[in-house]
Amino acid sequence: MHSQVDELRLIDAFLAPFGLSRDARAAGPGVLSGPGDDCAVVRPSAGRKLVLKVDELVERVHFDWRWFQPADVGHKALAAALSDLAAAAATPRWFLCALGVRPGPDALRIARGMAGGMAALARRHGCVLVGGNVTRAGAWSVSVSALGEATRPRGRGGARPGDGIVLLGELGKAALGLRLLRGAGKRPVSRAPPAAIRAQLRPEPLVEAGLAAGSLASAAVDVSDGFLRDLGHVCAASRCGAEVDLDLLPLDPAVRSAGVELALSGGEDYALVFAVRPRNVAPLLSRLRRIRTPATLVGRFVPGRGIRLLEGGKPRPLPKRLGWDHLA
Amino acid sequence: MHSQVDELRLIDAFLAPFGLSRDARAAGPGVLSGPGDDCAVVRPSAGRKLVLKVDELVERVHFDWRWFQPADVGHKALAAALSDLAAAAATPRWFLCALGVRPGPDALRIARGMAGGMAALARRHGCVLVGGNVTRAGAWSVSVSALGEATRPRGRGGARPGDGIVLLGELGKAALGLRLLRGAGKRPVSRAPPAAIRAQLRPEPLVEAGLAAGSLASAAVDVSDGFLRDLGHVCAASRCGAEVDLDLLPLDPAVRSAGVELALSGGEDYALVFAVRPRNVAPLLSRLRRIRTPATLVGRFVPGRGIRLLEGGKPRPLPKRLGWDHLA
Repeated sequence: MHSQVDELRLIDAFLAPFGLSRDARAAGPGVLSGPGDDCAVVRPSAGRKLVLKVDELVERVHFDWRWFQPADVGHKALAAALSDLAAAAATPRWFLCALGVRPGPDALRIARGMAGGMAALARRHGCVLVGGNVTRAGAWSVSVSALGEATRPRGRGGARPGDGIVLLGELGKAALGLRLLRGAGKRPVSRAPPAAIRAQLRPEPLVEAGLAAGSLASAAVDVSDGFLRDLGHVCAASRCGAEVDLDLLPLDPAVRSAGVELALSGGEDYALVFAVRPRNVAPLLSRLRRIRTPATLVGRFVPGRGIRLLEGGKPRPLPKRLGWDHLA
Repeated sequence: MHSQVDELRLIDAFLAPFGLSRDARAAGPGVLSGPGDDCAVVRPSAGRKLVLKVDELVERVHFDWRWFQPADVGHKALAAALSDLAAAAATPRWFLCALGVRPGPDALRIARGMAGGMAALARRHGCVLVGGNVTRAGAWSVSVSALGEATRPRGRGGARPGDGIVLLGELGKAALGLRLLRGAGKRPVSRAPPAAIRAQLRPEPLVEAGLAAGSLASAAVDVSDGFLRDLGHVCAASRCGAEVDLDLLPLDPAVRSAGVELALSGGEDYALVFAVRPRNVAPLLSRLRRIRTPATLVGRFVPGRGIRLLEGGKPRPLPKRLGWDHLA
């Protein structure tokens, strides 16, 4: 054995924050067999559809140990998958976690920390770890396969010309946070708004809001790769275009002064973008206000293709980069 | 962009062998929304349980491009997950695939090749790709989250003292194949039995046999980490011991001459080990003979703990290494 930690000890350390062990047969609601068995076995709810999403974070690509704590990485990996379930109007139920471990003296500490951040978020949303995989790797990685249930899952494809574009959450903060952490910003990190750093390290998936919106939203996407890129996915799937009014975009002053491009294409916002029939806009906004989720009408879907930006009533060119290419 | 390939082109290349595209809304039986949407949506069968498994292969840990073709890697990643579903008596239905891409001029070719091997195996077993994720990484990796359905899923925990240990498939060939490929064996690769190389590169999950066994097997595990290690998992979960008769182990002559340890702890066999009540042993063997799956009674579960090996009726010490530690 040439690593400092064996697999079973690492699995034990990872399971502990979830209140689980390798002996645990059943781990939560609907779970017939949990991480202690070869496969996980769960009982899906009668008459509901299953909504599936896999997301992965990789060391030096998505996170850097210089500014991420292990708990941040665990939190963010699960948050990314839950955000997609939220867009789809799915109730989070279960998840699998595949861990790539770079062996070293701190492997146990990192695994335990990742699990701690992940377990706290999982608990808040009633999403249960049911299985996983551990392998040695040249870099740390964590991939989450999340399963949710929905009666009427929302997809990207339900927008129609005339629908309002409603944005839940905020744009640009996470990208600003990353810029500040990297020290590439004009201000030193110490003067950074803690909210931006937090948005980068600990994004909060809008699970409750995604469910509360119900059938008032007819299409949705979560903003992980950049607002314009993800909105473009809805346009493409719905075969329509979109018009976004920059004056309506809710921008944190720090984001505004750093540049609106951060909000348009910065990514990792885990905001939600909804297509909403005109008669449903007011009821939706009022429903979201009741659960204290910031929601703003920022434009509308239009006939045709592509996205047009308006500022002061006039067209404004799109930024060069619409969002993240995950191989770039 | 500093890579030679963009994300969308790579996704297109990966989806093509599956007959899918990013526009595809529905991709197969029970699929309401496929890889073209944010989340996958599937319709589980009424009254059946959902069986879940995630497995991951990593470049330079599980495979080496010097002897693996991309199609081998794609095949093997899915085969590993299907083998676990087979042990659990689950019918394969859907899977998600998370791809770690090491950017380079051959990235498109590798992605297309991996998908080709994976798609061919998926098609044979009626398992449908419904979603995935692509990220840049320092090494290629492929993780498969497979979903199956079962009315009565088998776990590791159902063995009782007195049950027969029935082995489906063969042991040691895959490990011999790896040794030969690595050139560490005593014989040159050119004299290697092609079956051993094939067992390493293209293991066949015993899906049909796992389903055919039905309730004749009361516990099961698939042999991925080594026969003794995986059998030990059944013993631990079932709170009993096991006695294995080496004279009964079906060994390929090449494996026998390379050393029985390859069969006992070599791993990656994707054989199945069943616990079978004494009255069910003959019916099970005959049922498996009809579908041409090699199956052998190799020992029995006993009261107590741990595994005992017998040879010529006498105890024989366990090898030092029982199987793979995935962090070692």
